[in-house]
Amino acid sequence: MIKGVLFDLDDTLYDSSSFADRARREAIKMMIDAGLKATEEEAYNVLQRIIKQKGSNYNKHFDDLVKAIMGHYEPKIITMGIITYHNVKFALLRPYPDTIKTLIALKKMGLKLGVITDGITIKQWEKLIRLGIVDFFDEVITSEEFGLGKPNKEFFEYGIKKMDLNPDEAVYVGDRVDKDIIPANDVGMHAVRILKGKYKNLDGNCAYEVNNLFEVVDIIKKLKKS
Amino acid sequence: MIKGVLFDLDDTLYDSSSFADRARREAIKMMIDAGLKATEEEAYNVLQRIIKQKGSNYNKHFDDLVKAIMGHYEPKIITMGIITYHNVKFALLRPYPDTIKTLIALKKMGLKLGVITDGITIKQWEKLIRLGIVDFFDEVITSEEFGLGKPNKEFFEYGIKKMDLNPDEAVYVGDRVDKDIIPANDVGMHAVRILKGKYKNLDGNCAYEVNNLFEVVDIIKKLKKS
Repeated sequence: MIKGVLFDLDDTLYDSSSFADRARREAIKMMIDAGLKATEEEAYNVLQRIIKQKGSNYNKHFDDLVKAIMGHYEPKIITMGIITYHNVKFALLRPYPDTIKTLIALKKMGLKLGVITDGITIKQWEKLIRLGIVDFFDEVITSEEFGLGKPNKEFFEYGIKKMDLNPDEAVYVGDRVDKDIIPANDVGMHAVRILKGKYKNLDGNCAYEVNNLFEVVDIIKKLKKS
Repeated sequence: MIKGVLFDLDDTLYDSSSFADRARREAIKMMIDAGLKATEEEAYNVLQRIIKQKGSNYNKHFDDLVKAIMGHYEPKIITMGIITYHNVKFALLRPYPDTIKTLIALKKMGLKLGVITDGITIKQWEKLIRLGIVDFFDEVITSEEFGLGKPNKEFFEYGIKKMDLNPDEAVYVGDRVDKDIIPANDVGMHAVRILKGKYKNLDGNCAYEVNNLFEVVDIIKKLKKS
């Protein structure tokens, strides 16, 4: 008997990768206007390398970019990048077209809903609030709050417990095979992979795969019957 | 012979105190809507105490407010406060009505212009960019960059040197007697106090006092003649 659904956030409930990428490209254009001595492609490649090395939650990407290209610190150029990045990201931020419809349908089925997400607590809540979907969720669990992130099984077990569910009563929906699907299956949850975001073309053996979030509703209907 | 003018930023070139205060009040209202168990006045008083204890650049004011009132961490309420505070602050952010007119007049007089401000470099640059006044200034000097803030004389001396001026060739404009006017006079600059912001009613013995920024233009005209 399925009683609850837990979701990954970034690239599962909204388009994170492509929005962030578009915001970074706009930021670079403004930085070049402000005096950054590089072509858009050069700057973009340096920025990608910095993000890869330092992770996406590092908060000095643009500082490092300017230092790498100019050889010194230039507050005006850095600040222009940061402002533009945030303005564009917030301007683009919205749920997938079928996210809210899906959450409503699941609520109507009487299911508990939750989020299990890697990231900084306040940043992840900010996204949920700005996306207008925060009130659908009974629990929001972040890696910062728990102290350990995906793919640790303890993180998923903590989430299920907070939702007051047994693993086999819970469905997990996420976009990454390595960090979402495998650990969710390992703890005994049903796991659905959504083929969105930058990992959508990676191979992976999953029992359930969907192209759009709303397909999750049908999968859960079938699971509830079984 | 006056050759340059250096400005304080917050409350001298734009209304910082009142905008921040209004943004905090709006943030508190939204936090109460989101479940903060306090009246607006109670929450406001607790927040004021936290800001006084931790300083205005401390970045966990709203975390501490929620913990003080609720006894525990509530990410939804905290995040609602942070988002509302920033949205309202940016919505209200603009120069004083005569700031740009004043900067244009001073530029036309052939003067070098600069900013000497306490604060985090990127945050102060962000304000200058969002205010639309960054390009008026030949130099922007922050306490974070220099490593020492107001009222240290070395900070003012560093600013004058970066502008390539002698102290008696430079006018300093700021709103605080203790942190702006006294140290500027001590290093040999001409200092003008602008009666704005939360310190405007404090006593202080200043050679030049103005109610509005544009009056600085006349003072400098007189100083140039003498």
